[in-house]
Amino acid sequence: MKLAVTGKGGVGKTTVAGTLARIFAHRGSIVYAVDADPDANLASAVGIDAEAAEAITPISGMTDLIRERTGSEPGSSTPVYKMNPRVDDLPASLSTEAHGVRLLRLGTVKKGGGGCICPESALLKSLLVHLMLNENEVVIVDMEAGIEHLGRATARGVDAMLVVVEPGRRSVQTAGAIVRLAGEIGIARILVLVNKVTESDTDFCDSLGDEFEVIGCLPLSEEVRRADLNGKAPFDAAPAFVSEVEAVLGKIEKALGI
Amino acid sequence: MKLAVTGKGGVGKTTVAGTLARIFAHRGSIVYAVDADPDANLASAVGIDAEAAEAITPISGMTDLIRERTGSEPGSSTPVYKMNPRVDDLPASLSTEAHGVRLLRLGTVKKGGGGCICPESALLKSLLVHLMLNENEVVIVDMEAGIEHLGRATARGVDAMLVVVEPGRRSVQTAGAIVRLAGEIGIARILVLVNKVTESDTDFCDSLGDEFEVIGCLPLSEEVRRADLNGKAPFDAAPAFVSEVEAVLGKIEKALGI
Repeated sequence: MKLAVTGKGGVGKTTVAGTLARIFAHRGSIVYAVDADPDANLASAVGIDAEAAEAITPISGMTDLIRERTGSEPGSSTPVYKMNPRVDDLPASLSTEAHGVRLLRLGTVKKGGGGCICPESALLKSLLVHLMLNENEVVIVDMEAGIEHLGRATARGVDAMLVVVEPGRRSVQTAGAIVRLAGEIGIARILVLVNKVTESDTDFCDSLGDEFEVIGCLPLSEEVRRADLNGKAPFDAAPAFVSEVEAVLGKIEKALGI
Repeated sequence: MKLAVTGKGGVGKTTVAGTLARIFAHRGSIVYAVDADPDANLASAVGIDAEAAEAITPISGMTDLIRERTGSEPGSSTPVYKMNPRVDDLPASLSTEAHGVRLLRLGTVKKGGGGCICPESALLKSLLVHLMLNENEVVIVDMEAGIEHLGRATARGVDAMLVVVEPGRRSVQTAGAIVRLAGEIGIARILVLVNKVTESDTDFCDSLGDEFEVIGCLPLSEEVRRADLNGKAPFDAAPAFVSEVEAVLGKIEKALGI
């Protein structure tokens, strides 16, 4: 399965993506977790410390590879993409394994004025489209906040998109835009996960069902907040939250017929 | 003064930018508020209802203009920018005034797979660099979440950048990246504003002073949360918050020698 996690900034995309990756790995799946947010932090949500994360070669750092496969200089504002870059052999050279999760990073913005991330996004798009998975393999992509990646169609190759929302109008507006745009790039299933729900928000959670295919509602978690402040992965430090995400994962698999 | 408001998604950039715009307008300044986030919502933070906001022509919707001024099709992934687009005459045709604020929008991603926002960002960059302001004129730009805009150097032309952070490691990591990258594109002053501070976070606020030029700490505001849920601008519905932002603005002006 290839799953992209999306949503407005701050809703908990990375927390959800990192926890899902660890749950799959714990079950024995082979997991590729892809950090596609240039303002990157999936590593810490998976439980890889900052130094080890820095040592991973990001896709954006593979200058020769991007030039060869996309026909563009990384960071160039004049990319001319080759239509079918070969990507079959990329994962092994780009990933680092920890906690049973193979982490890939799109990479960050290295230099002010250094350019956009269009060439890197094109490479990731090809990777997601062309990657052939065995039954026991899972790809989870933590997308950049917001909606620009949908203009680029970076996640076109995924089987499903999980849109995280939190109580509040703005993240729901973003979710509405994501659902529409993701449909336009041909993503088959788009599920909405509500996060940070307090007791006073139960109506909010229910009301979203009219507009979206809501797959679950996760509670606002003090455990998760503390894990973040202490630099721990939720999987290692927030057991109640992990149980909730496991239950949601069961519903996702049922919805997708897995 | 040209001021760009930046930060990780969800920290309150838009709330701060919209409130600053209204405060300046209330004082009698001529205010241009630019929504440069494709996942846009500055209009509602200024107090313009969704229908009126939709009626504004976004920069990205000005197809002919972008083609003429940047030499690129909007949404094209192969932009070839002209170095010096003429932008002096843009604001009047692109802005709509409400509550004394002239609102401009970069525009959103209209179609899944429709392309990146590089050409639009190039136009906005030129606009910010070339716009000549009189003493009583202010430009406030609500930047997209995260750091990709710094690779594009969209905000190169501003006099100062206000980086909003909230208590928590991740928004501080983002702020660190923003400060470094903004320095690289030559932004003269980079000020940090802490938002959503609770009583237990006072140490957090103090500790940031070692790393950043902290200009103020705004409290977590139930007023603002309620205003957002009710679709009201904080300026109209959260008077205590507005007073706090006014105090911060005084400090910003002092820091910038205005």
